[in-house]
Amino acid sequence: MESVTQTDRMEWLAKAGVLAEALPFMRRYSGHPVVVKFGGHAMGEEGYIRRFAQDMVLLRQVGAKPVVVHGGGPQIGAMLDKLNIQSDFINGLRVTDADTITVVEMVLSGAINKSLVSAINDAGAKAVGISGKDADLIRAKRLKSDVDLGFVGEPTMVDTSVINALIAAELIPVIAPLARGKDGETLNINADTVSGAISASMQATRLLLLSDVPGIMDKHGQVIPEVSVSMAKQLITDGTISGGMIPKVETCIEAVEGGAEAAVILDGREAHAVLVELFTEHGIGTIITKDDK
Amino acid sequence: MESVTQTDRMEWLAKAGVLAEALPFMRRYSGHPVVVKFGGHAMGEEGYIRRFAQDMVLLRQVGAKPVVVHGGGPQIGAMLDKLNIQSDFINGLRVTDADTITVVEMVLSGAINKSLVSAINDAGAKAVGISGKDADLIRAKRLKSDVDLGFVGEPTMVDTSVINALIAAELIPVIAPLARGKDGETLNINADTVSGAISASMQATRLLLLSDVPGIMDKHGQVIPEVSVSMAKQLITDGTISGGMIPKVETCIEAVEGGAEAAVILDGREAHAVLVELFTEHGIGTIITKDDK
Amino acid sequence: MESVTQTDRMEWLAKAGVLAEALPFMRRYSGHPVVVKFGGHAMGEEGYIRRFAQDMVLLRQVGAKPVVVHGGGPQIGAMLDKLNIQSDFINGLRVTDADTITVVEMVLSGAINKSLVSAINDAGAKAVGISGKDADLIRAKRLKSDVDLGFVGEPTMVDTSVINALIAAELIPVIAPLARGKDGETLNINADTVSGAISASMQATRLLLLSDVPGIMDKHGQVIPEVSVSMAKQLITDGTISGGMIPKVETCIEAVEGGAEAAVILDGREAHAVLVELFTEHGIGTIITKDDK
Amino acid sequence: MESVTQTDRMEWLAKAGVLAEALPFMRRYSGHPVVVKFGGHAMGEEGYIRRFAQDMVLLRQVGAKPVVVHGGGPQIGAMLDKLNIQSDFINGLRVTDADTITVVEMVLSGAINKSLVSAINDAGAKAVGISGKDADLIRAKRLKSDVDLGFVGEPTMVDTSVINALIAAELIPVIAPLARGKDGETLNINADTVSGAISASMQATRLLLLSDVPGIMDKHGQVIPEVSVSMAKQLITDGTISGGMIPKVETCIEAVEGGAEAAVILDGREAHAVLVELFTEHGIGTIITKDDK
Amino acid sequence: MESVTQTDRMEWLAKAGVLAEALPFMRRYSGHPVVVKFGGHAMGEEGYIRRFAQDMVLLRQVGAKPVVVHGGGPQIGAMLDKLNIQSDFINGLRVTDADTITVVEMVLSGAINKSLVSAINDAGAKAVGISGKDADLIRAKRLKSDVDLGFVGEPTMVDTSVINALIAAELIPVIAPLARGKDGETLNINADTVSGAISASMQATRLLLLSDVPGIMDKHGQVIPEVSVSMAKQLITDGTISGGMIPKVETCIEAVEGGAEAAVILDGREAHAVLVELFTEHGIGTIITKDDK
Amino acid sequence: MESVTQTDRMEWLAKAGVLAEALPFMRRYSGHPVVVKFGGHAMGEEGYIRRFAQDMVLLRQVGAKPVVVHGGGPQIGAMLDKLNIQSDFINGLRVTDADTITVVEMVLSGAINKSLVSAINDAGAKAVGISGKDADLIRAKRLKSDVDLGFVGEPTMVDTSVINALIAAELIPVIAPLARGKDGETLNINADTVSGAISASMQATRLLLLSDVPGIMDKHGQVIPEVSVSMAKQLITDGTISGGMIPKVETCIEAVEGGAEAAVILDGREAHAVLVELFTEHGIGTIITKDDK
Repeated sequence: MESVTQTDRMEWLAKAGVLAEALPFMRRYSGHPVVVKFGGHAMGEEGYIRRFAQDMVLLRQVGAKPVVVHGGGPQIGAMLDKLNIQSDFINGLRVTDADTITVVEMVLSGAINKSLVSAINDAGAKAVGISGKDADLIRAKRLKSDVDLGFVGEPTMVDTSVINALIAAELIPVIAPLARGKDGETLNINADTVSGAISASMQATRLLLLSDVPGIMDKHGQVIPEVSVSMAKQLITDGTISGGMIPKVETCIEAVEGGAEAAVILDGREAHAVLVELFTEHGIGTIITKDDK
Repeated sequence: MESVTQTDRMEWLAKAGVLAEALPFMRRYSGHPVVVKFGGHAMGEEGYIRRFAQDMVLLRQVGAKPVVVHGGGPQIGAMLDKLNIQSDFINGLRVTDADTITVVEMVLSGAINKSLVSAINDAGAKAVGISGKDADLIRAKRLKSDVDLGFVGEPTMVDTSVINALIAAELIPVIAPLARGKDGETLNINADTVSGAISASMQATRLLLLSDVPGIMDKHGQVIPEVSVSMAKQLITDGTISGGMIPKVETCIEAVEGGAEAAVILDGREAHAVLVELFTEHGIGTIITKDDK
Repeated sequence: MESVTQTDRMEWLAKAGVLAEALPFMRRYSGHPVVVKFGGHAMGEEGYIRRFAQDMVLLRQVGAKPVVVHGGGPQIGAMLDKLNIQSDFINGLRVTDADTITVVEMVLSGAINKSLVSAINDAGAKAVGISGKDADLIRAKRLKSDVDLGFVGEPTMVDTSVINALIAAELIPVIAPLARGKDGETLNINADTVSGAISASMQATRLLLLSDVPGIMDKHGQVIPEVSVSMAKQLITDGTISGGMIPKVETCIEAVEGGAEAAVILDGREAHAVLVELFTEHGIGTIITKDDK
Repeated sequence: MESVTQTDRMEWLAKAGVLAEALPFMRRYSGHPVVVKFGGHAMGEEGYIRRFAQDMVLLRQVGAKPVVVHGGGPQIGAMLDKLNIQSDFINGLRVTDADTITVVEMVLSGAINKSLVSAINDAGAKAVGISGKDADLIRAKRLKSDVDLGFVGEPTMVDTSVINALIAAELIPVIAPLARGKDGETLNINADTVSGAISASMQATRLLLLSDVPGIMDKHGQVIPEVSVSMAKQLITDGTISGGMIPKVETCIEAVEGGAEAAVILDGREAHAVLVELFTEHGIGTIITKDDK
Repeated sequence: MESVTQTDRMEWLAKAGVLAEALPFMRRYSGHPVVVKFGGHAMGEEGYIRRFAQDMVLLRQVGAKPVVVHGGGPQIGAMLDKLNIQSDFINGLRVTDADTITVVEMVLSGAINKSLVSAINDAGAKAVGISGKDADLIRAKRLKSDVDLGFVGEPTMVDTSVINALIAAELIPVIAPLARGKDGETLNINADTVSGAISASMQATRLLLLSDVPGIMDKHGQVIPEVSVSMAKQLITDGTISGGMIPKVETCIEAVEGGAEAAVILDGREAHAVLVELFTEHGIGTIITKDDK
Repeated sequence: MESVTQTDRMEWLAKAGVLAEALPFMRRYSGHPVVVKFGGHAMGEEGYIRRFAQDMVLLRQVGAKPVVVHGGGPQIGAMLDKLNIQSDFINGLRVTDADTITVVEMVLSGAINKSLVSAINDAGAKAVGISGKDADLIRAKRLKSDVDLGFVGEPTMVDTSVINALIAAELIPVIAPLARGKDGETLNINADTVSGAISASMQATRLLLLSDVPGIMDKHGQVIPEVSVSMAKQLITDGTISGGMIPKVETCIEAVEGGAEAAVILDGREAHAVLVELFTEHGIGTIITKDDK
């Protein structure tokens, strides 16, 4: 038998207060799909992954339906180096020949996918790792581009029935961004693009793009908390949004225009970034919303 | 567009951390019935009720199945006074004649029950208030006693099918402690007793007795955090537990011996007492557990 | 071993014939909601309630879905007298101040509701008593009137999902005519009005208004067996329908125009009035039907 | 608009009273299978069949699960005469050669079965006529006998899954007493025997054997209302039960010993005999009950 | 222990290849209703029936939903002869008086229907034989004709809910072509017509008319493998299709125009004709398809 | 319009006959799990994989529940060579260090698994590729051995709920032989062992071990068609079974003793080996059956 101090008691009461404050947010997302893209850079540390995994389990515990899409650029590069396979980048996209796509698929589906699955299982849920090739989840065609990017694709059809089946069985789907192309060829698709397409197809309540930037910056280097779709387009036009942020924002716009309720760009390296975004008063990145919100 | 300070950010991250810490506790109670007795004295302030209602909604949101049983002694007394109906107490039990039981039922089923229902509805769930008479939830006989207590009963049969039906429809049952006696007479039962009987019948994972004491006190006036059933019996025998605490502890013992996993005596006037007890590392009252735990 | 006389035999055969005659009527109502308003005056005698309860159980037994709404004017008045709370009536509606609504709710939800539930349980089914506040069944606003009637309301929204859940669990809902108003205030609504609103919302096959009049009378004091909605409006216009019958008929008209198949005004003091109305060749009150019937 | 007389009103109220009296009986049989054997002689008049059909629909309407087994001796005899096929009877059983069984099956499955089905459909339910050969409902072997009875069988296996499927689809099964024997031969089984075997297999709440006798007679020619299984055996031993009544009583004994709750021998020519038996205070035939009832 | 020869092995591998080839065809019909009319002449030999029964079981095993409709002209004629009932034919339709329809129903529902059921049961599935009278599957009126054909009908309403219930219970429905006419009279309907009406009502993927002709012949006496609906009409107009083939083709046209995907006329005397038609590259009869196929 | 020759017709009829012959075998496996281990060597040619995929789809089409487990030894070796990672074999088991297990997982889960999934999808079903790590399908510990084999495991717990969920969603599970070990380490398990453990856990009707040997050979080099478990043990003892065949046979014995009905060792390089084994009169490998069969 041990007894407790008044200080302990105060701390516990404060914690309970935080839970109570989170309740309205939990109710908002309950029953709805939340698609989370967990990027290669955000996976950089063991601690990031462990906390991300807890966030996914908590999301599910409070009634939301998390769907994880992951990237893996840095890890792919490392493996290609080990195999002495050289690859070029054009506009941020890897030129992917036959040898490269083999390595890309192995690293994404065989290494990263399963390590995320294990992390989520360790956090207390049951995750199942698949790729866009499983159950014909994603059909794709080669990405149109000025130069030949090889086995790089863009989605032509998304059939989320396998995702729905996994969710119905109380499993958390973890998806590697690969797809079946014409004549059975394997195509690698940008993970942001995959998460956007799945968000639209599932009419997700949120698409969360976790990467290594804190959100859309204004001209003063401050994160803009919220923009509408049309405002976001304007910010691209006027140059406020530039460089690698442009495709991210375009993915968000497409997701929202395709049926997702809103999309958020946030920094996956923040501890429990997903929880902060979804379950506290103010989010931490930039949310892109419908115009008529 | 407004931006956020670093202090805000730190606070949000801290809150997210609290949520993440609560995850293993949420998972422990998920899918299981938690029976909560909310006592007359704990209902004394508007704020108590509002926070209690939030706790019930949160419990449900994270997957547990809350069942609320309420008392109402103070409110009954006030109404009896207004009606100039005098009533005596013997061993803490109200002598209840025909006029009194009519008032007791009206106050419990008609006033307190519905105000709790409204508070829970306002907090975001859907509650349904019933009494032990609805759908024959509780059958009772007159309480055996040295003196004639009148229309005061003890349960003889508990059929929780109506509770299960309400839970299955995603509703939170709120139960007034009345039952049908022989020949259709209405009997008032102690709310602790009702919550204990329902806990046993449902094999609840927790019975929480919220009242106006912080738990079982040791000889030095410190709350004892945990006792086994046999230790609790010993504490009654040796006089450590005395007075009004004896029937509370006996209710807990009966609930645990009847099939509930554990029972907790705690102070319902603490803010979010239920959340502290269930979702933080250490509880705040006294938990009574099975001997072979 | 005892044997039977020929007279017994003849009587039994006659009874079987009555059952066989009722078959086509049973089939007509099978699977459909029948909303029954059981009024304060019709509850005046123990025998009325007992037979009414049998009728509800029989309705359910032969496949219909009875939903009971009850009033309670006389009992409320009696309790207000005991408490020395005075209340005035304007146009048949009680001016209801804060003290009064407290008593009204206690009497309706705590006394009458539960006694009806017990009577139905005794007759062999399982009834569950709720009020319009449970599970947000009815939202209301204050009734517009020339004078301030206080906490008297009219429905603004009816969500019958809790009724459907109870019916699905083979329970008979018994509903007290109270609702949640703005800012959580409790409002009393006329029981006829509540039963009409629920009938419309559930597209009931019948609304039965049981009160203490035999139906709509013609100029010669004879009950009119059937009128169409437009004919009923005409009878109000030409003064045939007058006084307290006007709001009853208007409730019926609104129910039918809102989607109920038909509404009947009948005398709840007749033995088994509901069975006579529904399961014999000719009904006993006045049925108000759609024009295009 | 027509009005009603006081006499009408009294008659209707009396009818409603009969319905109310029947309620406890309806509840007793609700949800349970009731197997009814409708015999060849009881089918003798159009009126018998029409009322029997109404009884089956009513049984179903009030929640019981009627299963009909029919005989057809007289009609088979008539058809055999038309075809100049001669057949002998030994101990009340028809010696059935290959030509005869062909006619027996046609008459039972093709004529009587479908006319019963049509009668029940006309009375308002949906009946489906099958024989023991459908879905392998009954497997049989040739009846052991001193003389060769030919294609006459006794059940060796009863699989009521097709009956359950029809009941689940809210259909009333009507069964012709034929079965598949060894090597696919068709065997005719006594309809009493079939109904008894099905009653036992389904743990029916009642087996009703409708024929052309009023029940078991005592030595004074009075119908004995109720006997236990052991008493029935005694009455066979002491000769009170004799002749064609012996196999009927033995069928009842086997049904009850096999799991049916009780079996009744009654006169199917009485109007609505089934309703009288099941839904009035006293039955009209002889009920054979378990010893430990 | 016995070992196998190389020849055995080659044969088995060849058989496995046939199965593999059939896979795409199995997938095409999986989950869809296939209505098969099995005609009187095609039933002429025991072997025909046995193989037909195997085909039905295989159809079900690979996921299709077979529904069998049977005729029975030759067997009816034989029974009428035995009974010395004379019947005339007009335009291929039997003039059917009261005595005749009695025999027709007995032979179809009582003899042929049950022998088909037994054959399918022997082949390993569970079949249930019903007629159009069961559960009001088919309502009919007398066939309009220049002469009075008596109790010969044409469908006015098809309610396939009993078929769906049987299929849902994994049973194979076998249907005799009889229906209820006005005032409860029994009408015989051409089996082709019944199968066409059911095909249309169920939106069958195939109607297979098995008879004793190999299909529609061209002017050179060669079977035409496929015709569209409009081409079929043209072939009737130009006289290529003539005589008894005309009503068959018209039935197919009506089925396809009513919602069936295609209809096939083929020779039921060929071994496993149904399997050849459905599960090999080329069918063996004539398929009538939608114009816009 | 094209017509058909008599030769065509004969061939089609022969094919239909093969299908009909397969029917009893289809019925035997319908509704039951069939676990198929598809080995690394049997995957050597594109044609093998394509035909194997067809077999899996056919198995599912006729109602069985195929579960695929795959190996990948040769492909792993090739990748290790490319990466200049050397690995030793001890008793046929690869010594697997940290670098090696990373490659093993990538090749199995990322390359082979997905190519099998694509092949099955192309053949017309929907396959989902997972590993033993997904949804905690397999927990494992390091394989006990005289020498340290590193990250090589053996199953300690199999939870097939994810397999059941995929099957319930009409998906074909394809499983890579990896598992979670202590402290989250990844362990490679022999694919035969995994398929045996899953067969036992699912009480599979068959375990099919497809490899590159035709079965158990007797002393004369002839395949033994069938052995009981005890006979198989005897053949190991007496040396008839030796070398690499010993662990295969032991896996089969464990599967059968653990609850699988039978296990078969057969040559996966034979065309449609699975179909020959399951759907023709005689199997083509060696079947190991329970002793009491």
